Amino acid sequence: MGMTMSQKILAAHAGLEKVEPGQLIEAQLDLVLGNDITTPVAVKEFEKTGFTRVFDKSKVAIVPDHFTPNKDIKAAEQCKMIRCFARQMDIENYFEIGEMGIEHCLIPEKGLAVPGDLIIGADSHTCTYGALGAFSTGIGSTDMAAGMATGKCWFKVPSAIKFVLKGKPKGWVSGKDIILHIIGMIGVDGALYKSMEFVGDGVKNLTMDDRFTMANMAIEAGAKNGIFIVDDITLDYVKKHSTKPFTVYEPDPDAVYDEVYEIDLGEIRPTVAFPHLPDNTRTIDEVGEIEIDQVVIGSCTNGRMEDLRAAARILKGNKVKKGVRVIVFPGTQNIYLEALKEGLIQDMVEAGAVVSTPTCGPCLGGHMGILAKGERAISTTNRNFVGRMGHPESEVYLASPAVAAASAITGKITDPDTILKRD
Amino acid sequence: MGMTMSQKILAAHAGLEKVEPGQLIEAQLDLVLGNDITTPVAVKEFEKTGFTRVFDKSKVAIVPDHFTPNKDIKAAEQCKMIRCFARQMDIENYFEIGEMGIEHCLIPEKGLAVPGDLIIGADSHTCTYGALGAFSTGIGSTDMAAGMATGKCWFKVPSAIKFVLKGKPKGWVSGKDIILHIIGMIGVDGALYKSMEFVGDGVKNLTMDDRFTMANMAIEAGAKNGIFIVDDITLDYVKKHSTKPFTVYEPDPDAVYDEVYEIDLGEIRPTVAFPHLPDNTRTIDEVGEIEIDQVVIGSCTNGRMEDLRAAARILKGNKVKKGVRVIVFPGTQNIYLEALKEGLIQDMVEAGAVVSTPTCGPCLGGHMGILAKGERAISTTNRNFVGRMGHPESEVYLASPAVAAASAITGKITDPDTILKRD
Repeated sequence: MGMTMSQKILAAHAGLEKVEPGQLIEAQLDLVLGNDITTPVAVKEFEKTGFTRVFDKSKVAIVPDHFTPNKDIKAAEQCKMIRCFARQMDIENYFEIGEMGIEHCLIPEKGLAVPGDLIIGADSHTCTYGALGAFSTGIGSTDMAAGMATGKCWFKVPSAIKFVLKGKPKGWVSGKDIILHIIGMIGVDGALYKSMEFVGDGVKNLTMDDRFTMANMAIEAGAKNGIFIVDDITLDYVKKHSTKPFTVYEPDPDAVYDEVYEIDLGEIRPTVAFPHLPDNTRTIDEVGEIEIDQVVIGSCTNGRMEDLRAAARILKGNKVKKGVRVIVFPGTQNIYLEALKEGLIQDMVEAGAVVSTPTCGPCLGGHMGILAKGERAISTTNRNFVGRMGHPESEVYLASPAVAAASAITGKITDPDTILKRD
Repeated sequence: MGMTMSQKILAAHAGLEKVEPGQLIEAQLDLVLGNDITTPVAVKEFEKTGFTRVFDKSKVAIVPDHFTPNKDIKAAEQCKMIRCFARQMDIENYFEIGEMGIEHCLIPEKGLAVPGDLIIGADSHTCTYGALGAFSTGIGSTDMAAGMATGKCWFKVPSAIKFVLKGKPKGWVSGKDIILHIIGMIGVDGALYKSMEFVGDGVKNLTMDDRFTMANMAIEAGAKNGIFIVDDITLDYVKKHSTKPFTVYEPDPDAVYDEVYEIDLGEIRPTVAFPHLPDNTRTIDEVGEIEIDQVVIGSCTNGRMEDLRAAARILKGNKVKKGVRVIVFPGTQNIYLEALKEGLIQDMVEAGAVVSTPTCGPCLGGHMGILAKGERAISTTNRNFVGRMGHPESEVYLASPAVAAASAITGKITDPDTILKRD
């Protein structure tokens, strides 16, 4: 009985020839990640361990992205604490404002995640790096502390669901639509503690940015991790961004999966998740009249170049509907700069959007775009739980950058094809 | 006995031929202004008056700039409340995110302040529009409410101090250095409830942006208002931005001033206000070694094109010192766009700064760059009171954009001439 990609990575990092679903293992980590919310807790736990240094100063990354630029004194104190820790420990991958971005956009860009890596991060959406064929997963701050100290973490080996992707997405359909479609299909607990493994001929028709978006939202189906097969598109990305050695793991031909879904990408329509769960999806053809107050484009889910290109292409030459607030959050400083050079920021600002410096901002109800009672946002972020973006009586609709941008122009949730046809 | 510029504007708006210092008058208002902090209080007071509409829907301006993009639920609720009020009252000059900016940069840009205007605003730095030869002053939210209802406000006619400006500023010296020099000279109560009137041959050597900065900080010397004589530079600005009719008031030849200062602009050095008052000034030659953690460039004081040009010119081709956070706040969306087109944003981001969408942000300790205990910022903003930008044990040093940008590169307060000589 063979192993899945995820199982093979875990086995290799545990020094085992074979692992089985449900087995408890201890594995070597390639990267331990934290942000400005989770790292302060981890640092306090780390200090209790008696360890005086981290296991490998090149394998810890700290990215203060959630409440930065510092929202308030508490945020400032938290950032100061982790900055001091990073200096004390001589952590190489501490990223300050001006050189950083949203962690899950930044880590791949900095070449810190490569195929075959085993990565833990004290943030739910650490699963993003599965786009590169890594096993990466969100853990709590105490696991982060132990990981920083020992370079190891315990795992219960997950079973897996296989998603065989076929065909090619049409028009404005992107990774976001595909993952929302999948979550809508299997539910927010559809992959509970399982690996979501994305394979098949259709993968080659997905850009790296599509894949990052899809792996990012694996957790929204309850998955332990999401992971893609590695192909030339992956290898091109890795070559461009990283000098780290890496290993490509393919699923064994006789790997066992709990379930197998075949998905024809050509059949997927632009998809929107209605409040208050990511699996409450409807196709754009089914949404009806939903007026919106705010549009959020960006985040670790959809703050990359392809996302900004789609949004800017739709916004260009149009005007944001009077009374609608449109806030754009590029994923990293590099993405910001690239978008600026491509003219995307100009297109979006001329349309009436504001472009923030990278921050997690409103996605988690942090700052920079919080909703009042009764307000409604369409957002390219990953969660639309009750109160996620502000007041408990506000609403968040999840969608792709194209749908979000089209909605900005009309003031209601809109099929991007009605603004600009894309074949 | 003649009248000052300020007195003449008040007299004209009170329908009086003559006013005297200390006299109580009621005057017609040309504009009543509020922001997202002060307007909610004013709206509640307005509702108590029994008035069902504002005196003139074209003469009320509401700019949600302080805690926007919405910092938190409270900020979101405040913005929602004033947005609803603006819609109910059909207020023409309510500016939403995407079309707005920091109020004191926005109002002149939108042509809502012209020479001879009488303007009140529920914000201390409403005095900014004195740069255009208007009488404008900060008032409380109840006065804003009464102003919105009746179009009138009571004033005690101020006496005045005359500043006769001569010569031409040298090198990097800008309006900020001049006003800091003046406040250092007369103290934070040096012009208490008086008008600061800026006249003399030297005025022509000051750009409009210099003048906005200087008038903006009149309140930091305790002044009721700051006001400049109107010249061709003013008229060019007004022609470019406004279609409102206007009147130019010159001081009577026999106007009485409490004091007269002659200031040779050519003698002023780049000037820094040390904690914790704007009058605690030293020239750049006297600052010594002051390491900084954060640099803030922008705000209603220094968020205009000349400010960003100076900062970008110094930052271009250099790198922000490792560990220093540099946050840039353009004054308005138009300024952001103009700076983007001129390449200034690219220059600053490439140097390692982050560029925010316009907001008052950290200036008032609001959000987007709050200081932790013991941290030190150099800032182009207007106040360095205890805890102004965050923790009560943090420090703010006030300076020009050129000094701030130079300090960003070295990590300590720095003479811009040491980075880039400017003759």
